Amino acid sequence: MQTVIIGSGNVAYHLAKAFVLNTIPLAQIFGRNEEDLKEISEELNIPYSTDKLEDADLYIICVSDGSVENVSKLITKKNCLVAHTSGSLPKEILEGEYRKSSFYPLQTFSKSKELDYKKIPFFIETENEFDKRVLFEIATKISENVMESSHEKRKYIHLTAVFACNFVNHLFSRAKEISDSQQIPFDYFLPLIDETVQKIHEIEPKSAQTGPAVRNDVRVLQLHEQLLQGESLEIYKTMNHSIKKMYEL
Amino acid sequence: MQTVIIGSGNVAYHLAKAFVLNTIPLAQIFGRNEEDLKEISEELNIPYSTDKLEDADLYIICVSDGSVENVSKLITKKNCLVAHTSGSLPKEILEGEYRKSSFYPLQTFSKSKELDYKKIPFFIETENEFDKRVLFEIATKISENVMESSHEKRKYIHLTAVFACNFVNHLFSRAKEISDSQQIPFDYFLPLIDETVQKIHEIEPKSAQTGPAVRNDVRVLQLHEQLLQGESLEIYKTMNHSIKKMYEL
Repeated sequence: MQTVIIGSGNVAYHLAKAFVLNTIPLAQIFGRNEEDLKEISEELNIPYSTDKLEDADLYIICVSDGSVENVSKLITKKNCLVAHTSGSLPKEILEGEYRKSSFYPLQTFSKSKELDYKKIPFFIETENEFDKRVLFEIATKISENVMESSHEKRKYIHLTAVFACNFVNHLFSRAKEISDSQQIPFDYFLPLIDETVQKIHEIEPKSAQTGPAVRNDVRVLQLHEQLLQGESLEIYKTMNHSIKKMYEL
Repeated sequence: MQTVIIGSGNVAYHLAKAFVLNTIPLAQIFGRNEEDLKEISEELNIPYSTDKLEDADLYIICVSDGSVENVSKLITKKNCLVAHTSGSLPKEILEGEYRKSSFYPLQTFSKSKELDYKKIPFFIETENEFDKRVLFEIATKISENVMESSHEKRKYIHLTAVFACNFVNHLFSRAKEISDSQQIPFDYFLPLIDETVQKIHEIEPKSAQTGPAVRNDVRVLQLHEQLLQGESLEIYKTMNHSIKKMYEL
């Protein structure tokens, strides 16, 4: 089976690498950014092109959500299988006379960071059983966690990830602003952060909650509000309100 | 030097254990809850009492913030050193004719979880150089990260920890609510969460930000708001607003 990856960003790079590491052949990596494509091509030994899309049985589109539709129109071949890798788009966003599917890896990717692909969950949606088997076969070579998922379900998966990943990272940014303001190295907080995450591998986050809000420590809550302002104060109030609601305080 | 730990909760247990593992002698563990004290006493082979506080040179109070003041009055000995372990209290909260100090371990403790004490930062505040040396000597036996810290600075350390630990955990709780509502196992998100945290060991959280808000993806932001309600919707709006402000979007 001939497979082409379209895109040259973080998802394209890591997916291409996962294919190569698991000896799944790739016919081409296709995109606009020649510099990035060349780099991936040289590292992974895959042909690349910026203008001529290789004839293939499967195209996996790894571009930003806003570009998926336009990029999908570049595939003029009929009766092939096309997958996008977005958490929030339906497979019907793809525009062409081919079979449509979604191949969503739930992970945050940066080019410079090595990843254990075995642990990345893949969520798959296809039009028929045959395509499902094709994408499951590929995904299960890469990862231990492969599941079917409708667009409806994928929306919630993506939303959960926004809370558990994007918002968590933003809390780290705001936390670092506070520690920076007092010349306290943010590195000092890494063991605490690691332990916070380690805990939820073993117990439910709801049972692991600590801090002034869950023990309704009015003195500390007031003191903290006096130290804060702007967006961080808004976050402080919103999070504490939500914690109190969850624990009915 | 005779040292007594007062308290029988998570902090008392782990601090006592860190002492024992580093062969720093403990004369007694003192508290109200006989059952907990007995358990710690048996595991760590330290005498315990619920009524007679042992005569000592150093008392370390490991009780909840609200109880520190009252517990500190139980120490009637003069010219000894007393430390509390709270992130948010001044050393002056201690009431007695002894030398006052703060010995603050920055970590989230649960009895059932093993910890690498070497990685826990300790923040120390004392009245004089002699006491500082005493507490530094103990802390540096336990941990690689020991620093002096005023009450003022400690308040900000504690506040940073609330953002980076307590609020992060609450985001996990709200995320799990969303995934539970769709029968998606929350375990699927653990690799993503691990990677989110692993990233900030290597790059600044501000540079690691991903997600719909930082790329100002209005379509996804609106879609997500339609899926949410109540506290989670409030968190969604507040966090996105803060992300947009930080990146001037």
